[in-house]
Amino acid sequence: MAQITTPRPAQGTLELLPRQQIAFNRMTDVIRRHFEAGGFLPIETPAFERTDVLLTKSGGETEKQVYFVQSTGGLANYRDAVSAQAGADAGASDAGTDATADLALPDLALRFDLTVPLARFVAQHEGQLTFPFRRYQMQRVYRGERPQRGRYREFLQCDVDIIGSGSLNVRHDAEPPATMHAIFRELDFGPFTIHLNNRRLLRGFFRSVGIDDATQPLVLREVDKIDKRGLDWLREELTGERFGLPAEAVDAIAGFVGRRTTSHADAMDALTALEGRDEELDAGVAELREVLEMLRHLGIPESDYCVNFAIARGLDYYTGTVYETFLDEHPELGSICSGGRYENLAGQYTKSALPGVGMSIGLSRLFWQLMENGMVDDEPSTVQVLIPLLDEGLLPEALGLAAELRTAGLAVENVLEPAKLAKQFKHADRAGIRFVAVLGAQEIEKGVVTVKDLVRGDQYEVERADLARALRVELAQPELPGA
Amino acid sequence: MAQITTPRPAQGTLELLPRQQIAFNRMTDVIRRHFEAGGFLPIETPAFERTDVLLTKSGGETEKQVYFVQSTGGLANYRDAVSAQAGADAGASDAGTDATADLALPDLALRFDLTVPLARFVAQHEGQLTFPFRRYQMQRVYRGERPQRGRYREFLQCDVDIIGSGSLNVRHDAEPPATMHAIFRELDFGPFTIHLNNRRLLRGFFRSVGIDDATQPLVLREVDKIDKRGLDWLREELTGERFGLPAEAVDAIAGFVGRRTTSHADAMDALTALEGRDEELDAGVAELREVLEMLRHLGIPESDYCVNFAIARGLDYYTGTVYETFLDEHPELGSICSGGRYENLAGQYTKSALPGVGMSIGLSRLFWQLMENGMVDDEPSTVQVLIPLLDEGLLPEALGLAAELRTAGLAVENVLEPAKLAKQFKHADRAGIRFVAVLGAQEIEKGVVTVKDLVRGDQYEVERADLARALRVELAQPELPGA
Repeated sequence: MAQITTPRPAQGTLELLPRQQIAFNRMTDVIRRHFEAGGFLPIETPAFERTDVLLTKSGGETEKQVYFVQSTGGLANYRDAVSAQAGADAGASDAGTDATADLALPDLALRFDLTVPLARFVAQHEGQLTFPFRRYQMQRVYRGERPQRGRYREFLQCDVDIIGSGSLNVRHDAEPPATMHAIFRELDFGPFTIHLNNRRLLRGFFRSVGIDDATQPLVLREVDKIDKRGLDWLREELTGERFGLPAEAVDAIAGFVGRRTTSHADAMDALTALEGRDEELDAGVAELREVLEMLRHLGIPESDYCVNFAIARGLDYYTGTVYETFLDEHPELGSICSGGRYENLAGQYTKSALPGVGMSIGLSRLFWQLMENGMVDDEPSTVQVLIPLLDEGLLPEALGLAAELRTAGLAVENVLEPAKLAKQFKHADRAGIRFVAVLGAQEIEKGVVTVKDLVRGDQYEVERADLARALRVELAQPELPGA
Repeated sequence: MAQITTPRPAQGTLELLPRQQIAFNRMTDVIRRHFEAGGFLPIETPAFERTDVLLTKSGGETEKQVYFVQSTGGLANYRDAVSAQAGADAGASDAGTDATADLALPDLALRFDLTVPLARFVAQHEGQLTFPFRRYQMQRVYRGERPQRGRYREFLQCDVDIIGSGSLNVRHDAEPPATMHAIFRELDFGPFTIHLNNRRLLRGFFRSVGIDDATQPLVLREVDKIDKRGLDWLREELTGERFGLPAEAVDAIAGFVGRRTTSHADAMDALTALEGRDEELDAGVAELREVLEMLRHLGIPESDYCVNFAIARGLDYYTGTVYETFLDEHPELGSICSGGRYENLAGQYTKSALPGVGMSIGLSRLFWQLMENGMVDDEPSTVQVLIPLLDEGLLPEALGLAAELRTAGLAVENVLEPAKLAKQFKHADRAGIRFVAVLGAQEIEKGVVTVKDLVRGDQYEVERADLARALRVELAQPELPGA
């Protein structure tokens, strides 16, 4: 007997059983539909990029998480190069402990987000795209993270971005959150709020209380811990030796970052209250005000967005509007959809100015969290109708019925070996198939089909010619409670 | 100024512009819909697998094309290990020229097909699946091929398989081709034919003309060249020194592999004519006959399938039914959808017998071929309606209109900066957006919207309350010729 290898997937990956996958796909379908409704166009990029293209920008953290890719031949060459260098070093001297550290990296690497591939795509195809270029992209990305519950090494990211050529009106900053709002409303995980802020407003505010641009990230890092450690701790930290801020400045900061607006008018008031102290602050206020007005005109209920001056996001990347999204009843999940405005998408690839704005859902992690919280269930099977087989002689009729129903757009499974009807009902039930369409000798004689509806728990006869239409009507009904 | 890296994708990958991507997505939507109609359930597996799991079975060819994956940390460790071994070898002796050849492979590798991941998935989750397990999977696979036109290192594969637990009735062998038939009929690339054969029939036939199982693959390899080199060449080759077959055997083989049946009855005749010479041959005939009867009952037109005894497929893998699919008017594209029956999906992972049958479409290559042949066009934009902006003051109304149309399920783009209407029409036209919905001061006063239909080339007014319905009716019309 051949040797048995234990079948297990790579660590840190999310793999679903079919009915979980159906639930996951239902979400990606909703997301894609709203991305398209929002006027975004699909693109897909290869899973791997040239290493020199992928890693132009990266500092330390990103590069540490990159997965490099080598074909069998490439790997052999790489080993030879490493060996040769190690051999040469060993021959020459004993000094080098890290002889191969400067060896070139492998040629290919897996994408770690969808933003760098977007930048490469836009810079490469600039002349063939229409600007503002509105794209959506739903693909898996790869990060060599340390394995942790809910942290994946492969996960699906669902991104929308709008890229301007030369410039991009701040009004576009309202479009990603409007689209994301439509998505989370339909996905129906309960009430949620999109929190908005603006990086220019933030920088201007900190300047206005005497914190220079260099110190600001350090202060923001402390501010980030306020939820865990509380206001008193923050006060102590900021007035202490390290920062030496006056108490009034700390009070101003604490009041500022603690503010969550509760309505559209309240948000407008919060913005107005900040004006007139600093030019950059005023510019940020004006941008955020415009975005909020846009959201209102786009019909987003005022309960579903707020201004939150504590939202900062990636400090070296975002330059204007920033967003995070929270489930009101599940703040412990963290932000489920984030993003912002950036001034220069692709400076590493092109001299063209390409400002943009976008948001992203990390769906694998969100899905896992929802499963852990019991907030998503297995979906019913994609198979809608099971056609049992009662008798060898009835096979041709059963196959013909399946073909008819499929032509009418229904998803159908034929049982191909005769078995007791009870056993076949049980199969449908276990598999999550809603309808069993029985076509026995009697039914054939009468020109009918007996339908058993496993969701409603009833059974009835339908004219065969009418069956597809009848089932489609049933399937279009709103779902039954508890179904 | 920062250094500019030329933006280019990894070699051997297919990357599409948005309107090509829309055409590609239209195909994947059709494929997915029919996979589900055929009663197949979705699964997805991670792009990388553990190397020890992925490469249990592989012989030479597959392993040479595998892409290995290493995180930054993993790569550094690997380099250290290679260096250490090279150093040790250099110190010990000068004998080893390939010092590191026996070094362990990296831990992870990208999947090169969807069959090995399916085997791992089924073996791993056996207890949680319902058998026969009918799954579809549409994911990209990776092969470190030498770059060639139309040969990709990353390509999308669309697979259906049915896996039995212990056994699987041969009747299931008709289900993958029936589903694939529905797909290619809807995709409408012109007439096509699914060619069927049976490996048992093939083995039995070759035995019956005196060719043993060991010689059969060699003979088949020569037979494969018949299209290019002709019958005379084959005759010479098989009667020559290498094979030494008698002339009658060669004539029998040539007649056999040259046969293409032209109707269901002709296929049945071809099968009957083979019976009674060899037990294995008869068993194969019986299987193929059953599959053909099933296809007929499933409503597949007899013009769309045939028996072709020259179809062999992977000799060490398939054990029964085998399929290839050709576009009748484009045989130069080769088989666009292939597969077959295998006796043991996952022998490397489990002691359970898991026979299966499946077919696969390599969509990236097919799509590229269709583009090269001018057989697919860019699709219109996914954006259906452009709402121009004529005047700053009209922005709130324009945004409100977009929200209404999106709620009604339409895909809408707002122009957010006022511009001349002609320029905005031109943008819609270039972008492939069909409708421009103009909402000027006059329209607002009258409660209407002026619609310009860029496909039909006409313009009309619609009551605003009626707009979404009117556009949906237009979009549901069959496409205009030349549109």
